[in-house]
Amino acid sequence: MDKILRINMGNEGGPQASEEPMGDYAGLGGRGMTSAIIAKEVPPLCHPLGKDNKLVIAPGILSGSHAAQSGRASVGCKSPLTGGIKEANVGGQGAQVLARLGYAAVVLEGKPKDDNLYKVVINKDGVEIIPDNSLKMLGNYDLIDNIKAEYGDKVACISIGPAGEMKMAAASVAFTDMEQRPTRHAGRGGVGAVMGAKGVKVIVLDDTGMETRSPKDPEKFKAANKVFTQGLKKHPITGEGLPSFGTNILTNIVNEAGALPTRNFQSGRFDGAGNVSGETQSEIMKSRGGMVAHGCHKGCVIRCSGIYMDKDGNYLTKRTEYETVWAHGPNCGIDDMDTIAMLDRLDDDYGLDTIEMGATIGVAMEAGLAKFGDGEGAINLLKEVGKGTPLGRIIGNGAAVTGKVFGVERVPVVKGQSLPAYDPRSVQGIGVTYATSTMGADHTAGYAVTANVLNVGGSVDPLKPEGQVELSRNLQIATAAIDSTGMCLFIAFAILDQEDTFNAMVDMIGAFTGQDMTADDVAALGKKILEYERDFNTRAGFTKKHDRLPDFFKTEPLSPHNVTFEVKDEDLDQVFNW
Amino acid sequence: MDKILRINMGNEGGPQASEEPMGDYAGLGGRGMTSAIIAKEVPPLCHPLGKDNKLVIAPGILSGSHAAQSGRASVGCKSPLTGGIKEANVGGQGAQVLARLGYAAVVLEGKPKDDNLYKVVINKDGVEIIPDNSLKMLGNYDLIDNIKAEYGDKVACISIGPAGEMKMAAASVAFTDMEQRPTRHAGRGGVGAVMGAKGVKVIVLDDTGMETRSPKDPEKFKAANKVFTQGLKKHPITGEGLPSFGTNILTNIVNEAGALPTRNFQSGRFDGAGNVSGETQSEIMKSRGGMVAHGCHKGCVIRCSGIYMDKDGNYLTKRTEYETVWAHGPNCGIDDMDTIAMLDRLDDDYGLDTIEMGATIGVAMEAGLAKFGDGEGAINLLKEVGKGTPLGRIIGNGAAVTGKVFGVERVPVVKGQSLPAYDPRSVQGIGVTYATSTMGADHTAGYAVTANVLNVGGSVDPLKPEGQVELSRNLQIATAAIDSTGMCLFIAFAILDQEDTFNAMVDMIGAFTGQDMTADDVAALGKKILEYERDFNTRAGFTKKHDRLPDFFKTEPLSPHNVTFEVKDEDLDQVFNW
Repeated sequence: MDKILRINMGNEGGPQASEEPMGDYAGLGGRGMTSAIIAKEVPPLCHPLGKDNKLVIAPGILSGSHAAQSGRASVGCKSPLTGGIKEANVGGQGAQVLARLGYAAVVLEGKPKDDNLYKVVINKDGVEIIPDNSLKMLGNYDLIDNIKAEYGDKVACISIGPAGEMKMAAASVAFTDMEQRPTRHAGRGGVGAVMGAKGVKVIVLDDTGMETRSPKDPEKFKAANKVFTQGLKKHPITGEGLPSFGTNILTNIVNEAGALPTRNFQSGRFDGAGNVSGETQSEIMKSRGGMVAHGCHKGCVIRCSGIYMDKDGNYLTKRTEYETVWAHGPNCGIDDMDTIAMLDRLDDDYGLDTIEMGATIGVAMEAGLAKFGDGEGAINLLKEVGKGTPLGRIIGNGAAVTGKVFGVERVPVVKGQSLPAYDPRSVQGIGVTYATSTMGADHTAGYAVTANVLNVGGSVDPLKPEGQVELSRNLQIATAAIDSTGMCLFIAFAILDQEDTFNAMVDMIGAFTGQDMTADDVAALGKKILEYERDFNTRAGFTKKHDRLPDFFKTEPLSPHNVTFEVKDEDLDQVFNW
Repeated sequence: MDKILRINMGNEGGPQASEEPMGDYAGLGGRGMTSAIIAKEVPPLCHPLGKDNKLVIAPGILSGSHAAQSGRASVGCKSPLTGGIKEANVGGQGAQVLARLGYAAVVLEGKPKDDNLYKVVINKDGVEIIPDNSLKMLGNYDLIDNIKAEYGDKVACISIGPAGEMKMAAASVAFTDMEQRPTRHAGRGGVGAVMGAKGVKVIVLDDTGMETRSPKDPEKFKAANKVFTQGLKKHPITGEGLPSFGTNILTNIVNEAGALPTRNFQSGRFDGAGNVSGETQSEIMKSRGGMVAHGCHKGCVIRCSGIYMDKDGNYLTKRTEYETVWAHGPNCGIDDMDTIAMLDRLDDDYGLDTIEMGATIGVAMEAGLAKFGDGEGAINLLKEVGKGTPLGRIIGNGAAVTGKVFGVERVPVVKGQSLPAYDPRSVQGIGVTYATSTMGADHTAGYAVTANVLNVGGSVDPLKPEGQVELSRNLQIATAAIDSTGMCLFIAFAILDQEDTFNAMVDMIGAFTGQDMTADDVAALGKKILEYERDFNTRAGFTKKHDRLPDFFKTEPLSPHNVTFEVKDEDLDQVFNW
């Protein structure tokens, strides 16, 4: 993993690939890589769909090795949704395979000279860029079936659905999972629209003949990896909760905390929560012969995914994640698990961010386009997106655009990106992250639900402003660093609570790279990445005025706790003051 | 004109009117009044359609007097289109009548508690706020017919059409003209959406029993007004060009200058320009028994308006202005005057900004929704807006939203507001105004076409960057001041070229208010207003990064001169450095 692959889609004589050494980007991976390239090479005021934007796909520092949980990739660009820098993090097989192929980053550049749709095929022999207009407007599932028929059942794919081709600002980039299904998505910020603007439908990755990446200090690495893996297995969340019930274990917990945004953030508790909880979901999955406790990539020991069958016992979708269940369920007043699974399936097929879609349908319901609780109505709205009708294009461009077009006032977005599954009024720490993250509203950027609700990594009263800025700051720094390693963010539960697990992770990175690492080095890396991102956003015109939640969170109390978001503006402005 | 009328639409017991003395706002009028109130009273980060935004309607300092050309009003708010401060300037009868009724400003505040639609009736006896849901979704023409039937043919009306009720960001506020037709619009920035959000359909103004406003020094005022009027009549543009051919005299001139944006700013010259020029338009109007050289309000001596009949000799619309002709004509590749007049009529009826609509249809054509040159297609797109279909709502929210929804890259907007009828590549001075104006792209904010193309007020090479910043700066300052007087901006031609006319204007203001005025005082007033506006925008999150033209103006040369916009960013940042 010592080179960067650039694919110039705007080359005069047709798309052209070239390889280069790491240069200034040596040592970087994942989010560190994508944000460094975007901040350095993309003009911050360029059009996100234009020739000057770049789509960067980067496996993490440890991806492609035997390190547990190291299968995450980062997808970065200037976001068509927020107008700022974007890193969308994704599981599946792509990161491992790309890393084994030797690429620390694939960079799609330029603007196509024609209307052809391309597939990019990368294997040990090199890179081919092939026009294939037969793939136009295929859903991700059909697309991958096509690719499998041509390239076999060993390849990993990175692709877009019709939403990306239509350059919708909620379009995702799909990564195939271990079963070659397009169920893992770099969801947020419209990265799929940028891939669509580059004219690339799919990147086919074949690591046949390539080796697993070797650590510099194999003994130390192996030992650290063992302690690390044991740490994940012994923590109740990563060892039991997540494999048993998936991330959707959170529905009951967050509902109990009065923080489950219901009917477009109108209240904090949903009376149908029990019907869509992780416990109920797992029951349904098991009763239909689905699979629980399944990884999304090889090397995963947490195994929060699974397979969800329909009523007839046929594959429908993966174990739908908590944020997706929330977005299409409680946030739309829907309490039917099969409806939610179908919406998830459609999102994956069209290539859409499930969070943005659920939030957007919530806003559309507020505008009267369907009633809260109307599952069929929600499915129909989403099908409009797949068809690319005018209504579908509105919705496919996200909650901010939908709110604007229909004149809705309660639109839960920051920097144009919709809020995820935790109401910031009753989880004030996550509110600080939503407001200040370089990414727009994003729970993964600094997951303060840990100390606010789960009592992981300490305990901070979720209903009060005290301590939230510090909590969010530390988590944002740590997350930026973890997002560079290729490690799944869910390791956070174990490393926040268990010092030996944290130390094992640091040792593992040191043993792999050959450069000894301390906890301070991890923090320094996180800060450096955030500074790259903040600098890009400042040059793109963002100010502290954009680090704010929508007004209604400050003026409308949320039931059942009747709280508003109380963190002061001047305190928000201190998050990046370290 | 010594009081402010506030109408609280969010009052618990139903809408309530209250009067107050001028207080801090004493001496202000027009844009000075609207921008002062918005900057002082509206939280810059509030939702434009929410309870905290205000819609301020203010006649100019001289409105309601015998001063020639003093019939302009300002309509201000936080803009739903740009997110910044907004002043939209408008002719018609409203300013004069409102001023005679004694109101320096009408302020619509709060958020309605119910879904009723209201009419506000103001006469010498006071203010009535009456729910009237029979008016819902009426076009402006039908609405005014209703109002005439109830209140007679002397009242002036300020109203919104369906676009305002649907809270579209391109919705205008209509003012009736001398014939009680809703042909004069505070067009830009979505002021009509804010009126719609306040639940007010129409303000009916009856000045029966009220006197024309008297100057403090009647003799001096009368003398100055006479010199001023003579100055307007002797200048070739205000005395001959505008009355004979309307503002559309510009089509041939701007086309000849290679600055007529054609087919969504793809080129600077339109081969069908002759078919839609002011000369052709006047021929058509005269041949069908229409009227040329007609004022939009009593007291107008320039008389750039007129009446446009259809092929059967029936009233269709007013003499369509240059920017409207351009927007719906050359910018959409359309060269049929009747089609353009029909689009103008529909805009007025639905209550839409003609510039934003033409620019948006141009973007929609670029997206493939109709072909350039397809007049019937353009009319159909506009009718979608009136019907409020999803496609119509996209278009009714302007060019930026339409470009985003359909993934178009060439979107001619600054701060979310579409560029008007002069390409900034071949009129670089107006480009400076577009980029830097507090209003978003706006030609009236600093009409550098004067010295760039018309050789009025000096001469600055339009194709070169030199001198443009100073030109735009001076014009922006002067315009902010003129926009406060209630005077029509077209006086600028005469006062820029003729010192005695400028002095007469200054004398007239001094004689009217009783406070002697100098040219320096005029400049100081203009600067103060711009500072209010800049301060609001800064607090709303705008930075110098928002004072930029879209990239393509800097990279795509415009035919026939093959020029790009060459004014440097650092020079743009000096516009407000005085």
